[in-house]
Amino acid sequence: MSEQSDLAQVTRLVGERREAYLGRLADYVRLPSVSAVGGEPVRAAGVQIRDVLRSGGFDARLHETAGQPVVVAHRGGARDRPHVLIYGHYDVQPPGEDELWDSPPFEPAVRGGRMFGRGTADNKGQHLAHVIATELLVELAGELPCPVTFVLDGEEEVGSPHLDQAVRELRAELATADLVIVSDGPTARDDRLDLVYGLRGILAFELTATGADRDLHSGHYGEIPPNPLWTLVHLLASMKDEAGNITIDGFGELATPLPEREQAAIAALEPDPAQLLASIGAPRLAPAPVAGVARRQMARPTLTINGLHGGYGGPRNKTVLPHQALAKCDIRLVDGQDADTAWELVQAHVRRHAPDVTATWHGAMHPARTPMDTPYAAAVAGGIRGATGQEPVHRPTMGGSLPMWVFTRTLGLPALVLPLGNVDQANHAPNENLALDRFYQGIAVSASILLALARS
Amino acid sequence: MSEQSDLAQVTRLVGERREAYLGRLADYVRLPSVSAVGGEPVRAAGVQIRDVLRSGGFDARLHETAGQPVVVAHRGGARDRPHVLIYGHYDVQPPGEDELWDSPPFEPAVRGGRMFGRGTADNKGQHLAHVIATELLVELAGELPCPVTFVLDGEEEVGSPHLDQAVRELRAELATADLVIVSDGPTARDDRLDLVYGLRGILAFELTATGADRDLHSGHYGEIPPNPLWTLVHLLASMKDEAGNITIDGFGELATPLPEREQAAIAALEPDPAQLLASIGAPRLAPAPVAGVARRQMARPTLTINGLHGGYGGPRNKTVLPHQALAKCDIRLVDGQDADTAWELVQAHVRRHAPDVTATWHGAMHPARTPMDTPYAAAVAGGIRGATGQEPVHRPTMGGSLPMWVFTRTLGLPALVLPLGNVDQANHAPNENLALDRFYQGIAVSASILLALARS
Repeated sequence: MSEQSDLAQVTRLVGERREAYLGRLADYVRLPSVSAVGGEPVRAAGVQIRDVLRSGGFDARLHETAGQPVVVAHRGGARDRPHVLIYGHYDVQPPGEDELWDSPPFEPAVRGGRMFGRGTADNKGQHLAHVIATELLVELAGELPCPVTFVLDGEEEVGSPHLDQAVRELRAELATADLVIVSDGPTARDDRLDLVYGLRGILAFELTATGADRDLHSGHYGEIPPNPLWTLVHLLASMKDEAGNITIDGFGELATPLPEREQAAIAALEPDPAQLLASIGAPRLAPAPVAGVARRQMARPTLTINGLHGGYGGPRNKTVLPHQALAKCDIRLVDGQDADTAWELVQAHVRRHAPDVTATWHGAMHPARTPMDTPYAAAVAGGIRGATGQEPVHRPTMGGSLPMWVFTRTLGLPALVLPLGNVDQANHAPNENLALDRFYQGIAVSASILLALARS
Repeated sequence: MSEQSDLAQVTRLVGERREAYLGRLADYVRLPSVSAVGGEPVRAAGVQIRDVLRSGGFDARLHETAGQPVVVAHRGGARDRPHVLIYGHYDVQPPGEDELWDSPPFEPAVRGGRMFGRGTADNKGQHLAHVIATELLVELAGELPCPVTFVLDGEEEVGSPHLDQAVRELRAELATADLVIVSDGPTARDDRLDLVYGLRGILAFELTATGADRDLHSGHYGEIPPNPLWTLVHLLASMKDEAGNITIDGFGELATPLPEREQAAIAALEPDPAQLLASIGAPRLAPAPVAGVARRQMARPTLTINGLHGGYGGPRNKTVLPHQALAKCDIRLVDGQDADTAWELVQAHVRRHAPDVTATWHGAMHPARTPMDTPYAAAVAGGIRGATGQEPVHRPTMGGSLPMWVFTRTLGLPALVLPLGNVDQANHAPNENLALDRFYQGIAVSASILLALARS
């Protein structure tokens, strides 16, 4: 059977089985696998998807970690074809306040062509589309067009703290993979899929400062003990200048410039700044050491203060000298920047500039990047074209962070991110949803990619 | 009758009438004259003290303002003697949370030699001591030893917004005063009274910054719109450097150095830094451009961040780019620094360094200082010695702020602050109290000062 007729069959079967697939997604979303809470409900989702994979002919098991288990599932396919590793996660974000949801977060509901529920798009629906694609391909051809391994994380939403260790333990069976595909997040636009070659890393930390052991009168004690807010203001100002340069001692030397091809691709993705600013209701761009919004988002490290709190915040004024303050920050890391090294530099900078301040590590991921000329990219893009009729938007990197580095760094594999969710999937927010046409399209896209890779 | 025998008589009568005076203080404290709330309960306290003054032979009335009335009361005395203006305030701070009080804030209760209740020490008990002193002196001599005017503010706790206007309207009858005495605040130590010649001014303001119109993902939007926390950090860092110098454009040029005598007096008041730090539980002194804690507290302007808030402040981390932030600040002003000029400089600095930031004025007082060689200081100190047997501690200025500038600046009068409250009076806090021996001593001190001034 030709690749094209296989794909037509897949599309036909998906059309016929929409209700059944919807029901399977609903069953999966119903499990409240909130990793921030942990415990049995998370594991139950791992067990469910393991059993689904077993039913689909996969050799599937739970690989135990110090946290939630990793679901590992292999199924061979046509020999000597590329071995595809598909990464996803069966854990979900906390639902947040119930009253902000139009329907209960763990009672999946279909309205206006979307399924609403926590985990629909992030990430159950996305990896379930890949799983269903493998079932259909086996049904049509008796075997997969290429060997497929699923690695499904149970702790992605808490920073995948045990994934790297698990992948190291599984190295023997995962290192034979040729390529990693991660479907997560929304697409950047409605009309095209994205094919993303890299992600920024992240280092999240908190700075806490103390002065006296209680709040004091600013008239009697102003500038006698250290004011923890001034301590943090001066420390932070020493970490990034007004022009937007990160000035953490030694930090600037880490980043390596992107290759020409990636730089050109980024330049081609430059959005209209006025339109971008209007979309987020901002008056102007932040000061930055480089021109180009796309370069800032994809090729530059950023240091963001996520929160800063200390002292009085109520109406009017209170002439108090506060006794403690905290700043929460994240640094997005780019090529050449190692999260561990960045953390050492942050700690050393704090020790040097504000020795009384405590720096607390809140999690990190290394950056990851796969060269755009990776041998499998053309086949994957061809698969996407085959199922959607359109070339994907090739993005050298994304501003956000995912644990893709575990595959690129620990296993040395090329990895591609292919978000299948709709633009407005509202992940991490109330009323998370997956557009059903995206879900069904995702099944076809996944099948088409496996077929294209097999032919490559 | 000699001054000394008059004073002995005063002391005897106070001793005999303790219960009655206690009852009068309780009646006055019972009125919940919270100016932050306003309305009739505040005015009622003004009416009560006006009537008390009338009973004591004063020509007393309410002078209306756009806010609470000012109580003005005159009584002549021995001719050609110094005319003493006594300033106080009949309004009180909000009580705060009832459950933090050991007895209800407006049901005065005596325990362990103190009266507890909002306003006992700040400021009802302190000016009532002066009022009772005048009654006793008239009782003993038929007239006051010198003319006395009371000016009692109903809005001191909200920054005396209408006092200057009222004093301007009353200029004809107040400008004949020779000297202003303000009894407010606790003493600095248990064993001696303070005689204070000046107060720092204050300018309180808020800085608010906005970026996008909602919180955004720090990975996708970090450093695309302005981060209001970075805006405030860089703005604040431009207003004070790490060495503690205030660097608001033009600000440094305003202050004028204190005369030699004042500088020497400040140097003589230098506390033991280790003891001071231990008393407030602070690890070290804040960086400052001058040596000497006493100089920092009395002779230097300070810029304190009272509060800074924006973005996420909960447990662990949230990789958010916040959309708004605020900083509340106060500047304590010293000799030569005008609060209006300081406010213009702050606004101009903000416009120049962070044009998107809004600066909001929250109140101001000018600094005030009376030269230590003012002609009446020796007599006042002599009066204090006469009643207490001890020389007061002569303090050129205090770190805090009071509306004394209205008298020194608008009327051009010398003014002295003579706190009568105990060290631990807990003003502005729960369980505010006045030690009864301080109250009774305050009556004697006030009488003694009037007698000493009459003789000077």
